[in-house]
Amino acid sequence: MRMSGLAEATGVPVATLKYYLREGLLHAGRATSRTQAEYDNSHVERVRLVRALTEVGGLSLATVGRVLAVIEEPNLERTEVLGAAQRSLLGVDRVAIPPRDVEEPWAQSRTHAWLAGRGWLVDPRDPVVEDLDRAWSACDAAGIGLDEARMDAYADAAEQIAVIDVDSVPPEPQAAVRQVVLGTVLVDPVLAALRRLAQQHTAVSREVSAQG
Amino acid sequence: MRMSGLAEATGVPVATLKYYLREGLLHAGRATSRTQAEYDNSHVERVRLVRALTEVGGLSLATVGRVLAVIEEPNLERTEVLGAAQRSLLGVDRVAIPPRDVEEPWAQSRTHAWLAGRGWLVDPRDPVVEDLDRAWSACDAAGIGLDEARMDAYADAAEQIAVIDVDSVPPEPQAAVRQVVLGTVLVDPVLAALRRLAQQHTAVSREVSAQG
Repeated sequence: MRMSGLAEATGVPVATLKYYLREGLLHAGRATSRTQAEYDNSHVERVRLVRALTEVGGLSLATVGRVLAVIEEPNLERTEVLGAAQRSLLGVDRVAIPPRDVEEPWAQSRTHAWLAGRGWLVDPRDPVVEDLDRAWSACDAAGIGLDEARMDAYADAAEQIAVIDVDSVPPEPQAAVRQVVLGTVLVDPVLAALRRLAQQHTAVSREVSAQG
Repeated sequence: MRMSGLAEATGVPVATLKYYLREGLLHAGRATSRTQAEYDNSHVERVRLVRALTEVGGLSLATVGRVLAVIEEPNLERTEVLGAAQRSLLGVDRVAIPPRDVEEPWAQSRTHAWLAGRGWLVDPRDPVVEDLDRAWSACDAAGIGLDEARMDAYADAAEQIAVIDVDSVPPEPQAAVRQVVLGTVLVDPVLAALRRLAQQHTAVSREVSAQG
């Protein structure tokens, strides 16, 4: 199909498609003349993926570019998949972190102390730990009263979710990368919606049983 | 304190504070002269809350305005709290929805069919249901393979989270509104970070036990 056909198939304006091409988010079509190119189903799928990541996943186009680069990296070891996926989303180009010295005192913050108590096998210098620290502080600033006990209760549920996530990763490295990267971004909005619906269900169930 | 003091206490530039005042996100200070006003700790807290909602919660200033309006609404019944909170976040000014006719066929989409099977006490016309439908479709577009069984597994975890959420809502209506509204927005990033750390922990634990 021509670019106009690609625009029609995806609902994305030609000007935006041209922008994706310039930014490397969309691979070039097969040139049929000096000014024309032919696009196929792989282009339709790629455009849909970019839209899903930006509109549902809420990613910036810069982050989408990093995510796509990770998905297309052919030489990623299976053990590197999760780290590469999470880094692509954080926008952090981390250098290899040396193994943690277990003697090192790392309970610098409440978040570090809580993580140490939890016994999770994560690197305390991981940028996601900073994310958690910032998010927890924001809850404090808003007076939400998120204490360690409630954090542990949320962490139990997060472990349950993580097991589902990790179980769904296929054995082939390429497919694994795709699953981890896209699953991390695109399942977050699913979980946010499920949480709100489950809140409604829980609140209504209690009202009903209180009245009944 | 003067506005310059408020800027120093919060780390937010004076120009931004003036913008918050104009938009009604920050209440006026006590006028001490025709061009000067005095600000207090309530202003510091409000500015921190606005920053937490925009920077950590990722809300637009327009949504922050609606969230603050709900928090300050004095005449909200306890049973209306959850709906008002969720609407303020969605930016939907819903009119009262008539009670659902149980005879009405509402399995128009896979999401509706799945919800009906799940038995959650939620209104199928709730905008959050559309959010879930859109997020699920985005997962399909990306080829993530999120089927009904996996959705049910995520929903089990979401129920666990919702029980923690609902248990943390205090009895006084004003405090309840604050908890529900801010807890919904600001705990999402906490849960997203916990999910990523739990993924790492789960993946590393499995590697360790596979090697050991």
